[in-house]
Amino acid sequence: MQRSLKVADRAKVPAFEVMNILDRVAQLRAESRDIISLCAGEPGDGAPTAVSKRAAQIHAAGTPMTYTPALGIRDLREAIAKHYKRWYNIEVSADNVAVTTGSSGAFLLMFLSAFNAGDKVALARPGYPAYANILRTLGIDVIELDAGQESRYQPTVDLLESAWQQHGKLDGLMLASPANPTGTMVSGDELATLTGWCKDRGVRLISDEIYHGIDYPEPGTEARRSVSAWEMDTDTVVISSFSKYWGMTGWRLGWALVPDDMLPTVDALAGNVALCPPAPAQYAALEAFTEASYTEAEARVAEFARTRAAVLESIGRLGWGECAPADGAFYLYADLGDKLGAHVNAAAYCAALLEAEGVAIVPGNDFDRVNGHSHVRLSFAAGYEAVTAAIERIVRFQGKA
Amino acid sequence: MQRSLKVADRAKVPAFEVMNILDRVAQLRAESRDIISLCAGEPGDGAPTAVSKRAAQIHAAGTPMTYTPALGIRDLREAIAKHYKRWYNIEVSADNVAVTTGSSGAFLLMFLSAFNAGDKVALARPGYPAYANILRTLGIDVIELDAGQESRYQPTVDLLESAWQQHGKLDGLMLASPANPTGTMVSGDELATLTGWCKDRGVRLISDEIYHGIDYPEPGTEARRSVSAWEMDTDTVVISSFSKYWGMTGWRLGWALVPDDMLPTVDALAGNVALCPPAPAQYAALEAFTEASYTEAEARVAEFARTRAAVLESIGRLGWGECAPADGAFYLYADLGDKLGAHVNAAAYCAALLEAEGVAIVPGNDFDRVNGHSHVRLSFAAGYEAVTAAIERIVRFQGKA
Repeated sequence: MQRSLKVADRAKVPAFEVMNILDRVAQLRAESRDIISLCAGEPGDGAPTAVSKRAAQIHAAGTPMTYTPALGIRDLREAIAKHYKRWYNIEVSADNVAVTTGSSGAFLLMFLSAFNAGDKVALARPGYPAYANILRTLGIDVIELDAGQESRYQPTVDLLESAWQQHGKLDGLMLASPANPTGTMVSGDELATLTGWCKDRGVRLISDEIYHGIDYPEPGTEARRSVSAWEMDTDTVVISSFSKYWGMTGWRLGWALVPDDMLPTVDALAGNVALCPPAPAQYAALEAFTEASYTEAEARVAEFARTRAAVLESIGRLGWGECAPADGAFYLYADLGDKLGAHVNAAAYCAALLEAEGVAIVPGNDFDRVNGHSHVRLSFAAGYEAVTAAIERIVRFQGKA
Repeated sequence: MQRSLKVADRAKVPAFEVMNILDRVAQLRAESRDIISLCAGEPGDGAPTAVSKRAAQIHAAGTPMTYTPALGIRDLREAIAKHYKRWYNIEVSADNVAVTTGSSGAFLLMFLSAFNAGDKVALARPGYPAYANILRTLGIDVIELDAGQESRYQPTVDLLESAWQQHGKLDGLMLASPANPTGTMVSGDELATLTGWCKDRGVRLISDEIYHGIDYPEPGTEARRSVSAWEMDTDTVVISSFSKYWGMTGWRLGWALVPDDMLPTVDALAGNVALCPPAPAQYAALEAFTEASYTEAEARVAEFARTRAAVLESIGRLGWGECAPADGAFYLYADLGDKLGAHVNAAAYCAALLEAEGVAIVPGNDFDRVNGHSHVRLSFAAGYEAVTAAIERIVRFQGKA
């Protein structure tokens, strides 16, 4: 007798609406349609020149790329530690830096090391869906904080206290600043309040800082705003990446700042789970911390700023409802408001927009299954020309409705 | 009041003895001692020339390495599918190929997709410790099969039936052929028996085939012996890698053959857990399937065979006890027998050998916490000269005892 095989239930992850959009983008492009996709959460320019050049040299020389230590090569851990001195003026020991296979590898390793199955981790809704999906897959309970406009789509002590009363003790808080999909950031004061609350309550804060460096001064100021959780409390876990500021998404290289009490666990788990981060990317990424590479990255941030300004200027013409303040990253997250029109939800709006005008944006329910059905995320990482052209098409699309 | 933070209990992974050896190797080398390390489970020659060259070209051109599809670029999935035609004469659809971040990424993704927390997965002891460590970290129960000399250190139906009686229904079987640390392989008949038993019992077989291609004809024959579980049953999960046969350990690129019933789950989970495998490695790895790269890889296998022959010829002089038959891979796993001498265990023997003669090998209890205390694993991936010189030193070390 042959018994049927089982597939894991715990892996029941909801499908992303954006996949339908992306599949259709591919089809339309195959038909030679002129498509502008503002879906991708990634810069398209690639790594800094020196990084690519170093990688080319390594491979041209045929240098064998063998396993590195599980937490990364020492030189890179030290270079990352120094980066915290440069950007945040804090001392970080290379011993606390774990190089990972992208921030994805860091989320997995840090969630496994910080939380047991059945623990409760709070996070803001809307948010990056992989946080909740990874946590739930590992058997960790996700407590969604209904973080709307009034809290700038970020967790607050009030939301956390309310969740605590409803669900009991929380074990972790996942924070992202700048956030995906909203781009909103917490200020230094807000971050200090959150880390203080977490410390008082014995809650491990995991701070996703992968968009750091891509932020914009408040009007009338010159100050950039990214503040690291490690400026406040080294019991927090900081996660970052070479993907966004340095444009190295496909290289799969990130890191975590690991609190002392978690180091033995992270050390024991890292090699088992991932063996080591990609070796060629590690050696090449040493070049990310040169003056030339910082200068190149800053030029790209300036270009994001120019595109962002054009997007913000167009909000009136788009006629959408509430838009999250795009403090950082390269996203505009907006309620379509009246412009949803006759469409049943944002997914239908996005599908129709793609067919009519060849513009692809992401429906909000991938980020918020409760309130995201009338929202969209527009990524302006695609560049000024593409984004401004897309806005004209969206305005035209809405005018026809 | 500040509460103390918690670190996950589930992540209590035992420390590896080999880490002490490797730390001491690094110290001794820093003191300019002449050390031969036979610890590493990796070829030292690096990728095939064409693979490195392609990677160099991609980076020299500054091609942006952005995200790929979560299951890998289509061309690579198709090339891997074709590889199964070449090596095993079976038809595999590219739709069933999931490219992963090394075999580590495949183990994680496949374990998550196939098993729930509390499920039971059987595996042979001795074995590669990360299988059990990842499984336990995910809350999956590990049933160790005491696979000794009589079963050539591999699972058998008898061992499985006995485990079933003792522990109840099994949900999975982890198989590795060639195995690490023993190098032993299952024959086609044995594999057919195991896949048949698994199918009858509703047990998901996960077949680790990362050492395929590195195997040696039985004496008196020319036939190589690697047989894939997909030749028997496409309900099994096959895991493989570019690391060993193609020498690309640090590139972190592997794959899985995914049964149809698991595809939706794997598809949904892959992007959440890892986003995508490293993009530069994917494009470069297309060159692994050229005639030139196969030829280069075969030349290395021939060199492993020459080194293996020297190791096997030396077994008498080494005077060790039972040695596992080194059918494939590049390992000799042996009971030290009388040669353990006055050392309290293999870890002490290995530490003393390193101090006295500068030869590093791995103690067996990393692979078998029950019976491995008198065993060692010698990797002959380091090459003929290093390995034969090391053997002379080991003989001298034992002669002094």
